[in-house]
Amino acid sequence: MPVYRMTIEYDGAPFSGWQIQPGRPTVQGALEEALATALRAPTDVVGAGRTDAGVHARGQVAHFLVDTPPGEAHIDTHRLLASLNGLLPDAIAVRMLAAAPDGFHARYDARLRRYRYYIATGFRALDRHMRVHIRPEPDFARMQAAADTLLGEHDFDTFCLTQSETKNRVCTLHEARWTRESDDGDACFEITGNRFLHGMVRALVGTLLEIGHGKRPVEDMVRLLIRKDRRAAGPSAPAHGLVLEEVVY
Amino acid sequence: MPVYRMTIEYDGAPFSGWQIQPGRPTVQGALEEALATALRAPTDVVGAGRTDAGVHARGQVAHFLVDTPPGEAHIDTHRLLASLNGLLPDAIAVRMLAAAPDGFHARYDARLRRYRYYIATGFRALDRHMRVHIRPEPDFARMQAAADTLLGEHDFDTFCLTQSETKNRVCTLHEARWTRESDDGDACFEITGNRFLHGMVRALVGTLLEIGHGKRPVEDMVRLLIRKDRRAAGPSAPAHGLVLEEVVY
Repeated sequence: MPVYRMTIEYDGAPFSGWQIQPGRPTVQGALEEALATALRAPTDVVGAGRTDAGVHARGQVAHFLVDTPPGEAHIDTHRLLASLNGLLPDAIAVRMLAAAPDGFHARYDARLRRYRYYIATGFRALDRHMRVHIRPEPDFARMQAAADTLLGEHDFDTFCLTQSETKNRVCTLHEARWTRESDDGDACFEITGNRFLHGMVRALVGTLLEIGHGKRPVEDMVRLLIRKDRRAAGPSAPAHGLVLEEVVY
Repeated sequence: MPVYRMTIEYDGAPFSGWQIQPGRPTVQGALEEALATALRAPTDVVGAGRTDAGVHARGQVAHFLVDTPPGEAHIDTHRLLASLNGLLPDAIAVRMLAAAPDGFHARYDARLRRYRYYIATGFRALDRHMRVHIRPEPDFARMQAAADTLLGEHDFDTFCLTQSETKNRVCTLHEARWTRESDDGDACFEITGNRFLHGMVRALVGTLLEIGHGKRPVEDMVRLLIRKDRRAAGPSAPAHGLVLEEVVY
């Protein structure tokens, strides 16, 4: 069956995360429902990553398989894109939809995932749905020094929320960088890696903010990696600051 | 009485505009209420411009007068800023608060106002509260050519919503520029002038979009300026795309 790939943007606020759960609004559920209506056939959607409740995406990628209508070589992707956006709730937009190479798999073929965590140290109103207010201003040099120690291949067990999820907790991080976006306190943390464990980015950000506020030494990050105990790390930073920006294949 | 100046950001969605109206949530009303609580005295707030229901601001400016507490030379502006942000609804943030020169008036002293109108021609979800979805993609070159004819001093009567507002409808525009913000359809229209009439920016944007969609010739803009009939211009573009970005003194 021909496989199609889509890039999806969503506001995580109204959803109980990406993954389908019976009786709850989820992004995957909304997409499968819209596809079932548009294609008149039940359709499974496989995403590159399962974002948690409240987490946003600008560049989530997913694939699905469709039987080609009898007598037609391909489905009309332009028309399907428009239909889906008409059927989906406002909080979800399919930005791109195209035929993918045979055997394409959104999750297994993904090489890199890029997340950003957005904070504001000044008082803000317009961005409040996707920027977390952090007071007082953290020390960005300390947070960057701690983030630098995360680069490369490490076992991130300490920063994994679900202890049952997977046995292999080794991830390779290629980028972990704090950027001041404006003079008046907007900043973001960009992190890129081959894979991320459940709750990992928010646990890292929560720990980095404690370092930025002087509650932990910079060296704690290295110590925590070998502790393998989630309780030793900082709290999870709130979901609404996190955006899955891009998945690279 | 000492005068204080503040810069205010707000999400216009929950408010019936800037200006106080009995029994309705307004930005001015919320600010006066918060100031009355923080200062324990009724306080009038004067804004640089009265934004309509649903219109946002990143850089609205307002002033208010306060009696200095007995025995103190000044109010503690740092503390007042924090108190106000604690008292105000989440959709309003006071970004800056400082003593202003004697006689400072937020409305009369403003030299320039800068607005931006945000559109998306692609499907979007995250920015939907402050970016208006426009399909099909308008011709930006045509819209820019029409916008160029607005620069300088003109009577903008045709683009004024409230016929009773003011007799002098002459405004000087210094900038009227469309900018493509991204490859995938985000764009904005930035307009800067000494003053704006009621509903003027949204009427201009609605008319420019009709020109961009080929429903009107580019030359219509010049013709409309001399028509002096609001009904001859295009419809008002939706409120939620408009942001008062800055007021210059």
